[in-house]
Amino acid sequence: MLDFTFQNPAKILFGKDQVPKVGKEVKKFSERILLVYGGGSIKRSGLYDEVTQILKENGVHYEELPGVQANPRITSVREGIRLCRENNLDLVLAVGGGSTIDCAKAIACGFYHDGDPWDFFIRKARVTNALPIGVILTLAATGSEMNGNTVINNDDTMDKKGIGSPRLVPKFSILDPTYTFTVPANQTAAGVVDIISHIFETYFSANNDAYLQDRMCEAVIKTCIHYGPIALKEPENYEARANLMWASTVALNGLLSTGKRTDWATHMIEHEVSAIYDMTHGLGLAILTPYWMEYVLDDSTVEKLADYARNVWGVSGQDNYEVAREGIRNTQEFFKSLGLSTTLKEEGVKEESLETMAKKATEYGPLGNFKKLETSDVLEILKKAYA
Amino acid sequence: MLDFTFQNPAKILFGKDQVPKVGKEVKKFSERILLVYGGGSIKRSGLYDEVTQILKENGVHYEELPGVQANPRITSVREGIRLCRENNLDLVLAVGGGSTIDCAKAIACGFYHDGDPWDFFIRKARVTNALPIGVILTLAATGSEMNGNTVINNDDTMDKKGIGSPRLVPKFSILDPTYTFTVPANQTAAGVVDIISHIFETYFSANNDAYLQDRMCEAVIKTCIHYGPIALKEPENYEARANLMWASTVALNGLLSTGKRTDWATHMIEHEVSAIYDMTHGLGLAILTPYWMEYVLDDSTVEKLADYARNVWGVSGQDNYEVAREGIRNTQEFFKSLGLSTTLKEEGVKEESLETMAKKATEYGPLGNFKKLETSDVLEILKKAYA
Repeated sequence: MLDFTFQNPAKILFGKDQVPKVGKEVKKFSERILLVYGGGSIKRSGLYDEVTQILKENGVHYEELPGVQANPRITSVREGIRLCRENNLDLVLAVGGGSTIDCAKAIACGFYHDGDPWDFFIRKARVTNALPIGVILTLAATGSEMNGNTVINNDDTMDKKGIGSPRLVPKFSILDPTYTFTVPANQTAAGVVDIISHIFETYFSANNDAYLQDRMCEAVIKTCIHYGPIALKEPENYEARANLMWASTVALNGLLSTGKRTDWATHMIEHEVSAIYDMTHGLGLAILTPYWMEYVLDDSTVEKLADYARNVWGVSGQDNYEVAREGIRNTQEFFKSLGLSTTLKEEGVKEESLETMAKKATEYGPLGNFKKLETSDVLEILKKAYA
Repeated sequence: MLDFTFQNPAKILFGKDQVPKVGKEVKKFSERILLVYGGGSIKRSGLYDEVTQILKENGVHYEELPGVQANPRITSVREGIRLCRENNLDLVLAVGGGSTIDCAKAIACGFYHDGDPWDFFIRKARVTNALPIGVILTLAATGSEMNGNTVINNDDTMDKKGIGSPRLVPKFSILDPTYTFTVPANQTAAGVVDIISHIFETYFSANNDAYLQDRMCEAVIKTCIHYGPIALKEPENYEARANLMWASTVALNGLLSTGKRTDWATHMIEHEVSAIYDMTHGLGLAILTPYWMEYVLDDSTVEKLADYARNVWGVSGQDNYEVAREGIRNTQEFFKSLGLSTTLKEEGVKEESLETMAKKATEYGPLGNFKKLETSDVLEILKKAYA
């Protein structure tokens, strides 16, 4: 097990009727806040009315940044920073899914940065301070509600890049699973894949001595496999929505990656796909992951991939390669059963853009640790995933 | 899944060569501290010399409270409070296992209490403030290194009682598995049982809808079953010691009990045994647990106990009762294989004290949630565990 430091002070308020607590939690830090949200879903669900009513009752002044897109844009971040500065706002409250939270985080640190907030993402600036961040989560997927990571798109450069800092960990996150009842099937499915993929990035690791963490990773994957189909069939099944929501948080709050060398190659490749095609992140991961698994399968990785197949899918057999391949097939079949595509072509990706993606994905060097991937490796994976 | 609030800001520094960081971590809070430790083991291992040297190099003044016993006494707590007050110390650094940490916690809150620190444990006072607490852990067992719980013995009243408060969560805990290489076999074994038992208290729950948490509980139990025997055979096996150490922390840092109604009956019964007989806590739990499992097995609990047998021990079969009983047998056999006794009689417990224990264990009402236990139920379990 590798040496590690672990600390995550985020306060999680989980369950029914937690939203009314937002007033008290906000007021511990601020009475003038920026309310960040996405499209109209929180207005349709009644959450917008509930939250703004509570803020008013608590005497909290708020300005609004609506319209944050899936794959949030740096332009929204700039607008949010402007609003905070001009209105003396000193807390950013995200109401939504991972994109909204990520936008809020970039605003929170950008507020203290003299230059353009994109500087953080191209390594021209480091996060040294940030406004406090609060979250009301409406989608089980990214885990952004309990970590210091943010991923932002730049349309000018067709880039999608991420940063992380302990200063960007939300002070509090309210997780009410009933607010995910109305998440459409395709978003629910993509969220399930995103959770599983976060685990894969940690689980498929070059060091195999973090047994506890690996068994806990399998616990999260099994939870997704168990409840993903239930949530699709019965969108208002509280038990399914609650387990998926807490799984999304646990999958990426830092606990499961303690003592491990993580991979993140699949995520980096997917970022290049959705930087150009604005594809839902989880859908891109669902397409790419099985092809990545097949590509990295060799003598150095077969044991781990066979462990996965046996422990998660109950595959039996003596031959590790056969067992591993059966696990990969099960993975792809599962993603397909959630209604997700299995090729990039189906989703409108053009073959001629694959090379650009491969080059951009590796611009800072090879990807991954489970198996190192050069530009040519990434291109091979993208080609296989294409059709 | 039950509603819950989860927050645990403790900073964990895990691995080899973490101890030198104690100077920097302490100085974030204080330059005058109380150093709390137990018997001579930290002097024999060289840890005492290392820590005091680092403190000196960092200009940190320390006073010492040595000799904290297993099942720490309220008398040590009183002495620690006196030392802090007389010497203007404002951080308590525990170097040792759960008993030392628990003593440090009671000192930390007792410092701010006008009356006797035992008041907290008999519900005459509540924790409203506490000195910051730091930990260097030397035993994988109690999980006290990452929670706000403390259990203290009172020899005058033959009581062993616990309290919990977010204010008693350590600011930092240094976990270097190499310092557990010298833990004797019986303490290693008792520690493994203590970890497993903490999981049982959460896992065997009346509500069965926290699937994620239950699978993660099984992950921790499997880790203990896998590495317990290895640590006994190869005391300097780093992988085994590291997995057990992190398992001890994860088992009781609050994450796995989120959304669950916990039980704690077995712990409460064991506390009465070790209040009178000063038995190692984990040993008492090893003896009592299988008898508790057998006693609570009925139509309302059989499904969960069968789940346990299937998921942890790989027991197969259709009949839930048979499967559950096989799981209980496996549990007792495992504890026995670690070299631990299976009856209270073997450990010198007198039959005539069982009734006192049963009465004291239930003095505030019936125990447990998985199955409620009245005084007569507790007495039955103690009698079965006796011989």
